[in-house]
Amino acid sequence: MHEVHVGEDLRERNREIAGENRELLRKHGVVSLNLMSAPGAGKTSLLLRTIPLLKEKFRICVIEGDIQTRRDAERVGALGIRVYQIQTGGVCHLDAAMVHTVLHQLDLDSIDLLFIENVGNLVCPAEFDLGEDSRVMLLSVSEGDDKPKKYPLMFLESRLLILNKLDLLPHVEFDADKAKAEARDLNPYIEILEISCKTGEGIQNWITWIENFYKNREVS
Amino acid sequence: MHEVHVGEDLRERNREIAGENRELLRKHGVVSLNLMSAPGAGKTSLLLRTIPLLKEKFRICVIEGDIQTRRDAERVGALGIRVYQIQTGGVCHLDAAMVHTVLHQLDLDSIDLLFIENVGNLVCPAEFDLGEDSRVMLLSVSEGDDKPKKYPLMFLESRLLILNKLDLLPHVEFDADKAKAEARDLNPYIEILEISCKTGEGIQNWITWIENFYKNREVS
Repeated sequence: MHEVHVGEDLRERNREIAGENRELLRKHGVVSLNLMSAPGAGKTSLLLRTIPLLKEKFRICVIEGDIQTRRDAERVGALGIRVYQIQTGGVCHLDAAMVHTVLHQLDLDSIDLLFIENVGNLVCPAEFDLGEDSRVMLLSVSEGDDKPKKYPLMFLESRLLILNKLDLLPHVEFDADKAKAEARDLNPYIEILEISCKTGEGIQNWITWIENFYKNREVS
Repeated sequence: MHEVHVGEDLRERNREIAGENRELLRKHGVVSLNLMSAPGAGKTSLLLRTIPLLKEKFRICVIEGDIQTRRDAERVGALGIRVYQIQTGGVCHLDAAMVHTVLHQLDLDSIDLLFIENVGNLVCPAEFDLGEDSRVMLLSVSEGDDKPKKYPLMFLESRLLILNKLDLLPHVEFDADKAKAEARDLNPYIEILEISCKTGEGIQNWITWIENFYKNREVS
């Protein structure tokens, strides 16, 4: 939890700005998801699968967080939706202030669903509330089934865990039951979906999850 | 580069302690490598392949850095060599002070080769000099060929890049030439090896690399 170098003043300041972001998003009826994972677990690939299936139903916007390059934003922007790139310039996570700056550039009344793709990092992003409605994390099966207890905070903080790259299961040693049991041991409330962005397996369950999440947030 | 929350005083203090570590290791003739990568890229698997091939020739010690659990230390310790676990308790990287504490518990005269396995994180560990002789990073082909320019610092700071999980190449979209060209574009001096910890392919090249590195360090 960055005890060494995140001062309590910084945490407190992030919490305040995250609170402002949350209030702003709710006021305008924007439902937001913060996507987090290690590098290469498939966050951008998931968005590329998801957006075509939802863009007729929801007005979608994406905030892409990267240390360097605009690559992810270019890939997602090619789908014809609004994408905003945050280049952190070396910082290993998004924070609430970075997102706040972008929110003030958006016409929030014209957005239903906001995806925030965080920097690829299984540790630090989990420490920074962005003001999102919910956190969704990905773990790819090629990363290994021992990750939940080795990197516990993100599993503790996420509402949904998506196991991605199911297509690689025959080629890697990954005990999905073990990984799921560990994740639930850390966080009994975590929901879990299994997908392959490559083959499309399980994507419909994720679409349904988003639709239900949107519906429930709308009435809450 | 953590601009937001790593103060210059912390960086300076880390540099000082890293300098002390380096001096201590050199005084006792210990050659040290800092292994870095994203979670699940294969750092521990690489050590499990490497140690049996080197332990008759070198007196080996391993420092295992993890946020939580002693799992990696238990796996490596089963090979019958000395292993010290650092649990960072949430911190996303090893720093020089953590390593310093361990070095003072070791009989350095009885060690030829020290491997330091860093926390799985493609960003933050690259910012912290531990006093090692050289940095070695792993990138697994399942992480994607776009990673060097998206996460440049570790590629800039490493002497050797190991592309791991070659066995998965037929099952993922990964252009090794593209990844290597990007890494070299960032760091023209970077050496690159391609391996599979699963099949053993390329491991002998890595063993030879270590032997040459050890020999050259000895005479320098």
